[in-house]
Amino acid sequence: MSTTTFFSALEAQATGATLATSDVLDAIPWNDAGLIPAIAQQHDSGEVLMMAWMNRTVLEESLTTGRVCYWSRSRGKPWRKGESSGQIQLLKEALLDCDGDTLLLKVDQTGPACHSGRRSCFYLHLEPQQSKVCSDPLIDPAELYANS
Amino acid sequence: MSTTTFFSALEAQATGATLATSDVLDAIPWNDAGLIPAIAQQHDSGEVLMMAWMNRTVLEESLTTGRVCYWSRSRGKPWRKGESSGQIQLLKEALLDCDGDTLLLKVDQTGPACHSGRRSCFYLHLEPQQSKVCSDPLIDPAELYANS
Repeated sequence: MSTTTFFSALEAQATGATLATSDVLDAIPWNDAGLIPAIAQQHDSGEVLMMAWMNRTVLEESLTTGRVCYWSRSRGKPWRKGESSGQIQLLKEALLDCDGDTLLLKVDQTGPACHSGRRSCFYLHLEPQQSKVCSDPLIDPAELYANS
Repeated sequence: MSTTTFFSALEAQATGATLATSDVLDAIPWNDAGLIPAIAQQHDSGEVLMMAWMNRTVLEESLTTGRVCYWSRSRGKPWRKGESSGQIQLLKEALLDCDGDTLLLKVDQTGPACHSGRRSCFYLHLEPQQSKVCSDPLIDPAELYANS
């Protein structure tokens, strides 16, 4: 079954319908690098913290361990969030979107999600003419990576 | 100034620091197709509704008009959200992330954001072994696109 057919067929299913996760992962249209984007949202406050990338292996690891592991495109290897900063993400819920090409991870983030030391990576507010920085670091990034 | 230098320099700026939006848009590392991903979040409830793509032109249009316009990759043209379904997105706030490669749009979404008729595109809950449909359509999609 093609990816499109798989996810189109799913649309008609009602709440509670189940399917094997291995079949879902087979149907995901991974990009040329084998990745899909994953949005991380703090599960209780609803704050969107960051977006990063996952391949099948790190998604399966995250679902199984309950700790979020991304794929680092710059380092070309798994990135267990918090492994150098100590600011880990526990996975509370993972959701896939209607065409199977984006993940939404509801997480419990310890401290800042952003390498700049800010809680969220989304800290630049855009307006038509002028843009504005709209949050400050919780922790100095020099301190965040002092032991890495 | 390179994209990396631009966004690295920004990290040291405190809340309230301003810069010209045209300089920010010049620094965005648009992908090979000239696009970056944009996450849409309902501004008051915090619900993540969907992810789609934007080029510079549709981002500028959205910032100026206050109505969200994406770039449709399948149709290769601007996609003014709601133009066929009537379910529009008003833009309340646009935020760019720390490396300039993802947008977070806080929106006011009329009705369902998803073409399946569901409020959110993220309706498949993933567990290690079994996955489950976790929401139903608000509107029958046949009705949603009846006039398009």
